[in-house]
Amino acid sequence: MSEVKRKGELAKAASFQLVGVTTEEKNEALLKIADELLKEQQYIIEENKKDLEQGKENGLSDAVLDRIMLNEKRIKDMADAIQLLVELKDPIGETLEEIEKENGLQIKKKRVPIGVIGMIYEARPNVTIDAATLSLKTGNAVILRGSSSAKFSNIALVRIIHKGLETSSLPVDAVQLIEDTSRETAKELFHLNEYLDVLIPRGGKNLIDTVVRESTVPVLETGAGNCHIFIDDSAELEMTKKIAINAKTQRPSVCNAIESILVTDSWFKNNGKELLAHLHENNVEIHGDEKVTAVFKEAKPATEEDWCTEYLSLTVSVKIVKDYIEAIDHINKYGTKHSEAIITANEGHASAFLTKVDAAAVYHNASTRFTDGSEFGYGAEIGISTQKLHARGPMGLNALTSSKFIISGNGQIRE
Amino acid sequence: MSEVKRKGELAKAASFQLVGVTTEEKNEALLKIADELLKEQQYIIEENKKDLEQGKENGLSDAVLDRIMLNEKRIKDMADAIQLLVELKDPIGETLEEIEKENGLQIKKKRVPIGVIGMIYEARPNVTIDAATLSLKTGNAVILRGSSSAKFSNIALVRIIHKGLETSSLPVDAVQLIEDTSRETAKELFHLNEYLDVLIPRGGKNLIDTVVRESTVPVLETGAGNCHIFIDDSAELEMTKKIAINAKTQRPSVCNAIESILVTDSWFKNNGKELLAHLHENNVEIHGDEKVTAVFKEAKPATEEDWCTEYLSLTVSVKIVKDYIEAIDHINKYGTKHSEAIITANEGHASAFLTKVDAAAVYHNASTRFTDGSEFGYGAEIGISTQKLHARGPMGLNALTSSKFIISGNGQIRE
Repeated sequence: MSEVKRKGELAKAASFQLVGVTTEEKNEALLKIADELLKEQQYIIEENKKDLEQGKENGLSDAVLDRIMLNEKRIKDMADAIQLLVELKDPIGETLEEIEKENGLQIKKKRVPIGVIGMIYEARPNVTIDAATLSLKTGNAVILRGSSSAKFSNIALVRIIHKGLETSSLPVDAVQLIEDTSRETAKELFHLNEYLDVLIPRGGKNLIDTVVRESTVPVLETGAGNCHIFIDDSAELEMTKKIAINAKTQRPSVCNAIESILVTDSWFKNNGKELLAHLHENNVEIHGDEKVTAVFKEAKPATEEDWCTEYLSLTVSVKIVKDYIEAIDHINKYGTKHSEAIITANEGHASAFLTKVDAAAVYHNASTRFTDGSEFGYGAEIGISTQKLHARGPMGLNALTSSKFIISGNGQIRE
Repeated sequence: MSEVKRKGELAKAASFQLVGVTTEEKNEALLKIADELLKEQQYIIEENKKDLEQGKENGLSDAVLDRIMLNEKRIKDMADAIQLLVELKDPIGETLEEIEKENGLQIKKKRVPIGVIGMIYEARPNVTIDAATLSLKTGNAVILRGSSSAKFSNIALVRIIHKGLETSSLPVDAVQLIEDTSRETAKELFHLNEYLDVLIPRGGKNLIDTVVRESTVPVLETGAGNCHIFIDDSAELEMTKKIAINAKTQRPSVCNAIESILVTDSWFKNNGKELLAHLHENNVEIHGDEKVTAVFKEAKPATEEDWCTEYLSLTVSVKIVKDYIEAIDHINKYGTKHSEAIITANEGHASAFLTKVDAAAVYHNASTRFTDGSEFGYGAEIGISTQKLHARGPMGLNALTSSKFIISGNGQIRE
């Protein structure tokens, strides 16, 4: 039997054991994992060094190496995140609907675990801890399939998790790591319908597209963020500058940062140069349409590809539009349904934008950077969904749950 | 451009027009469709006859021909169902969550349409009306792909829908029928991710399995029902007989009818013969394990395949188990996660069964036949989901909705 099948079977069996486990038992197990992380940090750091050394040999970029790197601070952050997770309300068992029928039948819809969650992800070893602990908090088993670039780190972290679980009431088998990081194991996971209830990809566009295209297991898509701000005629200049800089530069590598600015013609005539100069001073490279390059010589000409590109760096595309209607159309054509903002004093335009733009999060006069589980009060996040089924936007604990109808009677039959 | 692509594009464009349409406008359009159905019933019946004649020539069974058949009564039922749908609360616009952050940011999570819904279904032309009207009520566009056996009926019904929409405020393009019922158009729909937000198969196991296996568009699985009742030691005999007969014989062709009865050894010793005789008198064919055939000579021996079979007819498999634990294990192994019942006076056993059986609906002392949108108070149903994401169990209007975060600020940026 292959590693994937064997671990799938173990995870499935563990998921049945997890049904009915109490909140206290889950929290106790989580705290044990946090303790082990702190106790074993030297071991984790040593194993992580092997990944870093191999990464350097393989010519990984500094940015990627930084994502893989674990130090005492980062391990402490993981343990702190677990502490916060323990304090979050357990969603399992919540009554979502309650119906009493005339014949006396009692129907309750209750929140239950999904079962077995599959995670396929790249680089970041912190996803190993996040995914495992969020899954356990919601009574799910999890199968982790990280990338070869973080292999030693992931093996070490899952050993720590198992050590924590061993002295808890939760089954150790609830967390499975696929150690073979070849393409074949990913493909096997795509078709592991017998054991997997959902597959969540975390990583670049290629990974996500592959999972969506190939997986027969239901996928929760955590997509890319080609986010925009649209500057309407009545946008206040100082607010606009502040939001544009924040949304573009505060953390350009994340999915809720903007990649594109749309500006109305008339606003651009009055304030365009000042905004572009402000972006330029903040080290933002501008790719603009003809009207932009005509007035701002530091801007490079934008091509059709620019409107589709998630730069994830200090670059922004700028396009002049006639009005909010053209802006909405452009966003619905090129956006990735993540986070989109309008800056305007016109309530009618704002309302049309918020209603008609098809995205997980739509903003009026605020930075797109708020699209985040912790900012929305979920406390923890397994990813940001850019698809429309099951969960949309930041996915907290509820996104890792399903529901079940529980019906109690005293002999009722259907007439 | 292919028919599927062209109609996909039209449906997508219509879905943007449907955003922001009022409840009144939607209900007005639905009533116009109901009116047209009644006005044009002779035309519908004539077109339906062509399907029936062709079906006879092709040797379709009487059961299938009955599913295809439309008469005045059935058309009246469709119009009445639309009337009921109009009276249901419009879920769109409902505020699901509301958060005010310390920095003044107002975050609202609101219910919105999904966008474009794809339906692939077999035989029953009433699904054409159900799917179209449920989609319109929830502000969605829909692409319908029925089977060749109901082609004339489906074309006629969609003409009626379009006639109703023409004089309404809703776009006519919101309802699209794929008239080419070849395999190729189904395959194109499986990969129409650009225009389709979800694909819902309604029909036999083969159809559903194919869609789940091949579609890259997210699927809402409306699966088969291999449902069980488990008769525990303390099950009251008369209640048990009543529930068993109801769950098996009231309407054997539907997915919430039972296919299998599990009985504890001791209950079977005392009451087994009486129950089996009662089933037999009600024309139920029994496939039993060795203990069953030993005491009831009319029973045929069951094979491993029987435990997996959804007969959809007056046949039931019967298996003797040691206790509720063996029953739970059997159901979790062979069941299709649809509807499962325990008959017992023991609250502890009931509680374990309801918690540990992995199914959309679990029953204590009641017939599984209640798993149904109208019985659960949803008033209308697009299918019964046997998967765990997005919707589980009977899917009413809410299952055809997504959500969106709408955030209002006055210049907030992330620190």
